[in-house]
Amino acid sequence: MKNENIKVGIIGATGYAGAELVRLLLAHPNATIASIGSVSFEGKKLSEVYPAYQNLCDMVCENNSDIAKKSDIVFAALPHGLSQDLAYDCYSSGKIFIDLGADFRLEDEDEYKQWYNGEFKHKALHKEAAYGLPELNRASIAGKKIIANPGCYTTCVPLGLAPALKNGLVEQSGIICDCKSGVTGAGRGLSQNTHFAELNEGLAPYKVATHRHTPEIEQTLSKLCGDKITLTFVPHLLPVNRGILATCYSKVKSGVTFEQICTAYEEAYKNEFFVRLLAPGKCADIHNVRYSNFCDISLHFDERTNTLITVSALDNMVKGAAGQAIQNMNILFDLPEETGLTATPPAF
Amino acid sequence: MKNENIKVGIIGATGYAGAELVRLLLAHPNATIASIGSVSFEGKKLSEVYPAYQNLCDMVCENNSDIAKKSDIVFAALPHGLSQDLAYDCYSSGKIFIDLGADFRLEDEDEYKQWYNGEFKHKALHKEAAYGLPELNRASIAGKKIIANPGCYTTCVPLGLAPALKNGLVEQSGIICDCKSGVTGAGRGLSQNTHFAELNEGLAPYKVATHRHTPEIEQTLSKLCGDKITLTFVPHLLPVNRGILATCYSKVKSGVTFEQICTAYEEAYKNEFFVRLLAPGKCADIHNVRYSNFCDISLHFDERTNTLITVSALDNMVKGAAGQAIQNMNILFDLPEETGLTATPPAF
Amino acid sequence: MKNENIKVGIIGATGYAGAELVRLLLAHPNATIASIGSVSFEGKKLSEVYPAYQNLCDMVCENNSDIAKKSDIVFAALPHGLSQDLAYDCYSSGKIFIDLGADFRLEDEDEYKQWYNGEFKHKALHKEAAYGLPELNRASIAGKKIIANPGCYTTCVPLGLAPALKNGLVEQSGIICDCKSGVTGAGRGLSQNTHFAELNEGLAPYKVATHRHTPEIEQTLSKLCGDKITLTFVPHLLPVNRGILATCYSKVKSGVTFEQICTAYEEAYKNEFFVRLLAPGKCADIHNVRYSNFCDISLHFDERTNTLITVSALDNMVKGAAGQAIQNMNILFDLPEETGLTATPPAF
Amino acid sequence: MKNENIKVGIIGATGYAGAELVRLLLAHPNATIASIGSVSFEGKKLSEVYPAYQNLCDMVCENNSDIAKKSDIVFAALPHGLSQDLAYDCYSSGKIFIDLGADFRLEDEDEYKQWYNGEFKHKALHKEAAYGLPELNRASIAGKKIIANPGCYTTCVPLGLAPALKNGLVEQSGIICDCKSGVTGAGRGLSQNTHFAELNEGLAPYKVATHRHTPEIEQTLSKLCGDKITLTFVPHLLPVNRGILATCYSKVKSGVTFEQICTAYEEAYKNEFFVRLLAPGKCADIHNVRYSNFCDISLHFDERTNTLITVSALDNMVKGAAGQAIQNMNILFDLPEETGLTATPPAF
Repeated sequence: MKNENIKVGIIGATGYAGAELVRLLLAHPNATIASIGSVSFEGKKLSEVYPAYQNLCDMVCENNSDIAKKSDIVFAALPHGLSQDLAYDCYSSGKIFIDLGADFRLEDEDEYKQWYNGEFKHKALHKEAAYGLPELNRASIAGKKIIANPGCYTTCVPLGLAPALKNGLVEQSGIICDCKSGVTGAGRGLSQNTHFAELNEGLAPYKVATHRHTPEIEQTLSKLCGDKITLTFVPHLLPVNRGILATCYSKVKSGVTFEQICTAYEEAYKNEFFVRLLAPGKCADIHNVRYSNFCDISLHFDERTNTLITVSALDNMVKGAAGQAIQNMNILFDLPEETGLTATPPAF
Repeated sequence: MKNENIKVGIIGATGYAGAELVRLLLAHPNATIASIGSVSFEGKKLSEVYPAYQNLCDMVCENNSDIAKKSDIVFAALPHGLSQDLAYDCYSSGKIFIDLGADFRLEDEDEYKQWYNGEFKHKALHKEAAYGLPELNRASIAGKKIIANPGCYTTCVPLGLAPALKNGLVEQSGIICDCKSGVTGAGRGLSQNTHFAELNEGLAPYKVATHRHTPEIEQTLSKLCGDKITLTFVPHLLPVNRGILATCYSKVKSGVTFEQICTAYEEAYKNEFFVRLLAPGKCADIHNVRYSNFCDISLHFDERTNTLITVSALDNMVKGAAGQAIQNMNILFDLPEETGLTATPPAF
Repeated sequence: MKNENIKVGIIGATGYAGAELVRLLLAHPNATIASIGSVSFEGKKLSEVYPAYQNLCDMVCENNSDIAKKSDIVFAALPHGLSQDLAYDCYSSGKIFIDLGADFRLEDEDEYKQWYNGEFKHKALHKEAAYGLPELNRASIAGKKIIANPGCYTTCVPLGLAPALKNGLVEQSGIICDCKSGVTGAGRGLSQNTHFAELNEGLAPYKVATHRHTPEIEQTLSKLCGDKITLTFVPHLLPVNRGILATCYSKVKSGVTFEQICTAYEEAYKNEFFVRLLAPGKCADIHNVRYSNFCDISLHFDERTNTLITVSALDNMVKGAAGQAIQNMNILFDLPEETGLTATPPAF
Repeated sequence: MKNENIKVGIIGATGYAGAELVRLLLAHPNATIASIGSVSFEGKKLSEVYPAYQNLCDMVCENNSDIAKKSDIVFAALPHGLSQDLAYDCYSSGKIFIDLGADFRLEDEDEYKQWYNGEFKHKALHKEAAYGLPELNRASIAGKKIIANPGCYTTCVPLGLAPALKNGLVEQSGIICDCKSGVTGAGRGLSQNTHFAELNEGLAPYKVATHRHTPEIEQTLSKLCGDKITLTFVPHLLPVNRGILATCYSKVKSGVTFEQICTAYEEAYKNEFFVRLLAPGKCADIHNVRYSNFCDISLHFDERTNTLITVSALDNMVKGAAGQAIQNMNILFDLPEETGLTATPPAF
């Protein structure tokens, strides 16, 4: 499906992921924002909620239920549980639905029940959905009508670990994922731990070994390996706006050299515009990917303990949310994948 | 001079203003970076200095003296005193020269001597130069070969005060300009007061009533009024990366109402894409203009003391440096002024 | 009234000012916290609200109405309007009451009505209250039973301007106070403008020329001059936790030299432990007073416009709230004023 | 050795660790700073270097070689390699020497050679030195004349892991220490990666698996276990001033329950004033230990992978440097260990 001017609708446009979609789509040469929806700000201009957008997007927020009919494609950025009916409606009327929430990410309903305390309302629909992490499963995306757009950690960790695991270069057990996220990951809703005076000059983990992105990361990596991966995932909240840094530790298999690993990564990502493998000795830094769809990866080897350390960095609002959603849209509309996503990350 | 593919050279590309030029020009539809120069990093890739640019600008820095010959237009981002000879060479060979430094900003050589302790090396050249603040003197820019691109404060303060002063709505004496700048204004050079641990959680003024932007601000405003303006200018250093906020205080003339003032601003800026006048009751915030070429302005009136308070906010690296330089280039090449400068400022 | 072990009660202990009182009083050699009260967290340990205090203050929050009877002195840190009845009860039972809120700060009930939309419930009580800014009105504090502890801006601005105004060295009209505050000044309550992702990397004014501290500042300065002062006051919100910086502009009277002004400040503050006058050429910085009761002041002169620029910096939670309240307590209990308040501000 | 008024000398007082020693010692009831030394600022007042200290420590920096003779005890905060001769001189003249640098930390000269490329100049002296991490080896400190004060990571990681390892509750191999440090750990020296505009809004690891604190952490833990521990240690640089957060991962031994582990930690630290074990479900946060000598520890269990996750947080300049040095001084002078170190960490 080629389209020179895609009409896009955004459900949940006033949340952070929705607002970021607006920012990126305004710069997309082949898309036009046709309508935006919001529960909290229906009837208000988006630029009243986000004054940064004044004169650039003064559209009025509509009722979320009115979005689909004006659009070729609908992005939904909603809390989990709210997307399934909307997806059903879109699917029924032949519209494409890209869900930035969690409802279609887990393939196993039991896992969804366990981690989200929810159920699959339209079971057939889940079979129609593709998981949208193009660098790892591009082939399964094209032609789909429902895309489960991965979360932030669930993009950053798999991109960091995939070539090592897929090629059987590291052990599948004992993987540790120590992750750090900027505060936009917690969204626009107010809470004490995102109150400036209490987060500033602080750092702590949260939801230690219980975060809902755990099964999603494992699902992605398990598929790559053909084996069930169970790993330890600990997120931390950083006093910065944007960025995920995933520092992942895995045991190098006996007989495997670091050079082999480096080669596997180069091979895996040599044609991936959005993955930048850093030169040996450099370290991935969230500073260098802000406001962009890049994922920077650096590889390190602790020869004293035979441990591979992969460090991956991305902007949680772009490659970890809105940018990747647009990357998926580009695939579905047969556009070059980087269309509208080539802005250079600022150096400072 | 219309040009579909302008060849651009950047002298001093590894400083902050130079690097920002690169970032913005990479997104410009009618310009190509032909060569970049650097004293400190000659022979190195720009992406080695700024890893954020990896894969996007891996050009190798050349000797600054080699830049002009490969380019239709040269941007120079150098410390004051170093641009005059380069400008002379460009001018002599028919190239356009946009100086982001201070050498061509002051028209009066005595003032240049007093504030910069320098001299006009090529006096005739100074008469050929135009001051490039399009919203206030657009007519004098087109057709010129040398542009003195204004500094950050010297864009922000005049845009905030111009309509009131030009229309004779406020007194010309007694103006106070209390300004606050993000740290990129201090450049890439290391210093104790930009060392993270010492700037973070701090705020202080600097160069109180002695900053070199003072005569430049006065020159711009004096021209608008036809009278010599002398004002008080105090800059402060903020623990943020980007942004200038100028809070300016002036006495409203007897008989003038705040409504008249608001109308004058609306009239002055109604066709200016890059100036966004905020709705009554809103306050300009540097947060909302980051990474963009916008200058947001809010107007406030203290009726208890009959004082007009204008608050203007811009990104010191964009509208206060590289963005405005490109805006000037667009004018010179007869392109729409906003070409390449329409990116939406991020909401967070 | 000398007391080796003052029993202190804190009403509103879980707000930021209350919590800061706890921190400082735990280090006070002559005071013991007898009880702490809270509306929102009654029945909870203070250290559950502020984990920083674990093992140091695990006291359980009581009902605010139970605090006074266990204490020699009561500090109240409440929103305006809530302190008057509590003060009345304390006064009636012979307890000392230090109000960190606004209820007793303005002497003129009409002004209180105008700015706070409230009334003086116990009119006689207001005549018993002293305004507690020791450096400017120490004599009126000793022996009082009710102290109106000044706000943050209302300490910082008067300390910066007092010697110049009191000694008639600057004009009384046309004074501009451009102030910048750390975010703790906005308190613990959640709001969009103190949400990390939206304040971070931002700066804007708020309540421009309408902030409630305006009449309080004017009252203090008017008393010093013997004349009604009306000035322009504009606060800004900074992305830092602590600190007020007040940059104040006043016209130097004809015939007065900057040296005379400097001498007047030295004379005024030479015996004031908590006021540090900086050496010529240095600039007051909020970084250098954090977590301390100091107010740093630097003086600057713009000879081009004959303007005195005073820059004063203090920690809004200490000299601008809890520290000054303790300073007042020390006066009332005949202790050296700096007792418990001598901690060195951290250098980083 | 009891002493009511210990005369203290500080070598390297103008570095960050030295300056923090000054701040803490000014509040110590039994110590007086007798002299301070500096290479870079000899002849200057300390308060000229750190204006925060004005009026509180206006002492003039002397030559480092003059410090010892005026003091009962000398703290040296110097780059590695520079302390050994100074320690020798102190030892020879019967003075106590506390080295905040690395020269006496490693017991094995080969390790010192390998990691620091240096040698033990006075081999006998190294046998006289005690490693000063009181919570883990208090008994070996008292009576010593030379104390090797541990580094920041090397306090934080061992305190987090010690009870589990010492009691044989976790496997000795496969331990991962993912650590995050505030920028004061990089010191006062200027560098591009601590330049505000480049660190702000960033996060990256550094010296991955090659940091010099690795053998020191292993030495401490190996002694506790009686077995050689080799672990993976990765530090990251945070855009905050202070704090170390160590997230450590270890495999729980077969048959061991999380309850047993929690009990072991409670037992180990129940009498340790400076270690605060958090309640189940809470997470250690660097925000809550700033400016204090506390180390907060939280324990977490990933039952899916049978992994113990210990999170320990301390202020790198206090418990990770100057505060612990004073704690060691208190032991040597037979003072209660917490003397001068009881300040409550600020809640914001």
